[in-house]
Amino acid sequence: MARRESTPTTPGSRAVVVDLIRSPGPISRVELTAATGLTQPSISLIVRKLLSDGIVRETGLTASTGGKPRVLLEINGRALYGVGVQLGFESITLVATDVTGGVIGREQIDGAGLDKPEVVTQRIITAYHDFVRVLGIGTGTIAGVAVVAPGPIDQHDGVVLGPPTLRSWLDFGLRAALRAGIDVPVLVDNDAAAAAVGEFWSRRISRSSTFAGIYLGSGIGSGIVIDGALYRGHSSNAGEIGHISIEQDGVPCFCGNVGCLERYASPGAVVESARASAPDFAELGLAFEPTSVMRDFDLLCRAAVREVEPARALIETSAAQLASAAVTLSNLFDLDHIVLAGPGMAFAGSIYARAMRDRLARSAFSRRAHPIVVELSSNPRDSAAVGASALILQSTVAPGHGPLL
Amino acid sequence: MARRESTPTTPGSRAVVVDLIRSPGPISRVELTAATGLTQPSISLIVRKLLSDGIVRETGLTASTGGKPRVLLEINGRALYGVGVQLGFESITLVATDVTGGVIGREQIDGAGLDKPEVVTQRIITAYHDFVRVLGIGTGTIAGVAVVAPGPIDQHDGVVLGPPTLRSWLDFGLRAALRAGIDVPVLVDNDAAAAAVGEFWSRRISRSSTFAGIYLGSGIGSGIVIDGALYRGHSSNAGEIGHISIEQDGVPCFCGNVGCLERYASPGAVVESARASAPDFAELGLAFEPTSVMRDFDLLCRAAVREVEPARALIETSAAQLASAAVTLSNLFDLDHIVLAGPGMAFAGSIYARAMRDRLARSAFSRRAHPIVVELSSNPRDSAAVGASALILQSTVAPGHGPLL
Repeated sequence: MARRESTPTTPGSRAVVVDLIRSPGPISRVELTAATGLTQPSISLIVRKLLSDGIVRETGLTASTGGKPRVLLEINGRALYGVGVQLGFESITLVATDVTGGVIGREQIDGAGLDKPEVVTQRIITAYHDFVRVLGIGTGTIAGVAVVAPGPIDQHDGVVLGPPTLRSWLDFGLRAALRAGIDVPVLVDNDAAAAAVGEFWSRRISRSSTFAGIYLGSGIGSGIVIDGALYRGHSSNAGEIGHISIEQDGVPCFCGNVGCLERYASPGAVVESARASAPDFAELGLAFEPTSVMRDFDLLCRAAVREVEPARALIETSAAQLASAAVTLSNLFDLDHIVLAGPGMAFAGSIYARAMRDRLARSAFSRRAHPIVVELSSNPRDSAAVGASALILQSTVAPGHGPLL
Repeated sequence: MARRESTPTTPGSRAVVVDLIRSPGPISRVELTAATGLTQPSISLIVRKLLSDGIVRETGLTASTGGKPRVLLEINGRALYGVGVQLGFESITLVATDVTGGVIGREQIDGAGLDKPEVVTQRIITAYHDFVRVLGIGTGTIAGVAVVAPGPIDQHDGVVLGPPTLRSWLDFGLRAALRAGIDVPVLVDNDAAAAAVGEFWSRRISRSSTFAGIYLGSGIGSGIVIDGALYRGHSSNAGEIGHISIEQDGVPCFCGNVGCLERYASPGAVVESARASAPDFAELGLAFEPTSVMRDFDLLCRAAVREVEPARALIETSAAQLASAAVTLSNLFDLDHIVLAGPGMAFAGSIYARAMRDRLARSAFSRRAHPIVVELSSNPRDSAAVGASALILQSTVAPGHGPLL
């Protein structure tokens, strides 16, 4: 009769153990056993593998309290690095993080703009090699590179399916092209999903939370984390909050739906509204160029925070629309924790967060059962790149726990 | 060192094994091992427990193909029954099903109406005892009674939190009151969630499906089944599709939100629209009484199916609104399978299904990645009661696999 030789552990067990070791302060195997409910042999097995992978290290002994002193464990922050790349129309950001989630380097290069995908890919490959050389991290310690872009993405095949700002990328095999010039594992994913994972991981949010990261970039997206794992749905197209209808007879969207949130509340839609009454915004110096959408949006946000009209009204409207969509997201997933991320949150994130907190407190179906915490990313502009790095590290540190987490 | 004595199995393993044994045709232990990827000792352990619980029985041997003949297993349909009770304003339905999901009895009594919850509870208790006596099923074979009602429900404490049609039930401890008169386990749950589980179970939908049951009763709800388990969210308030906003500056809802789907597309809203131009509907004989909403809605649906205007236009509008909400649900969960259920689907379900299929094919974000199947419940009127019975049976047959499934 077949019989397993060792106590079986699931990939999820390893993720839980890594999370506990990542928590502030070193921890012993005995404490891990108590905290996880796993058996001692399971903990021993997982820890032995983490030690041999170099992800965890022994850091000393507990003070004697009469019994045998215990070996303490901690994350070996410098054992492994991830590189996250946020591919945008106006800029491309590279970030390197260690296993603790700390950012150890950042670089920004020209965005995709209207350049051919092949040209942009070569730019990313060159930038990647310069970046890791300057940081002095060797190939042996790089877990991989994750490139994230606005959806839709074919996450499995690493193909960008062409969001409106990256139309020429339709069906471009990004992962295959990157692999030709990068000698570590490469993955391609959705920017909003990556940002959600990054926020969940770096904030050490509890696995019992039902968590969403809402992402305001050139488009609007979200990632939902359930039981500590990114929720992907049937084809990795979950969380597309930018394409839920907020108006029955609303404007048509490139996606095929009508009245999509993105057509009203995204930076592009807000800047378009400003352009429709351009003289009212003359003093802000908006460029109204196809390549200046995020810069113009930043100017509007900075004016809104200073309570300059009519910029304030425009941003408040966008915030109210995003808040209403957050109620929808919450009423369907029954969330208890939301973080706002993405470059669109860089200047007026506080306005968006306040509008969302107020609306959820008034309108969420579950508000009498529990509060829904709304927080702002501590680094909204880089959140997708940082999240991308978290994705690649997690797929190494805790492989197999969900599609990537 | 502690060491598990037997090969560990999770509650999920038992659910997977039960699902396989429930599939058409008897199956052997060897085939179960191959199909599940579980070890032989795990399968032996699970099957031994299912045999001793009486849920599974041995049904003969495979024909000899040279090797040792194998013992075949099948579900013991008559070992255990569940009773589902759908608590509605206009009627209360009792249903009994066996472990295969087959309905073995049905009874309908007066609805809650404006009666006191204590009086209605007594009515349910009396009806339950009459029902099981007439059916001839003994207490020993009844897994339990599940009473389902429109949300919000406190599923954990078995309290009805007072939907608009059952306002006097606010905070009434339904489970406790029922327990006083019923000598088997009792649970209270949301009608839409129950219907979704019932459809998933009785249709033997694949565990790899991302499935939703959309429920049109006096309100509108949904239940989402992920990896074979009902998705509950942080406080069992997930899937509240009736309370997502479909109109930015829409009408206020009792729930605190504005522009809720339920305020436009529910039977009550549709009948209200008809009343606003009552003379146009004179020939249909609508009563326009508070207690006749579902009957009036049925009359409108029957007229719509016969293409009688303006009833047809009213129902088509409701169907278009529900279809738009289904796109939202799909874009957030990335669904691949939807079933329409609930008494509201009894007469014009085909209109709702067609509108939803067309809209999803045109507007769903994932439509290029995969189709989204839309089907109609084969028994939409009783789907919540049948689903309630499935809930209680599953909590017995496959306990611990998710909150109830």
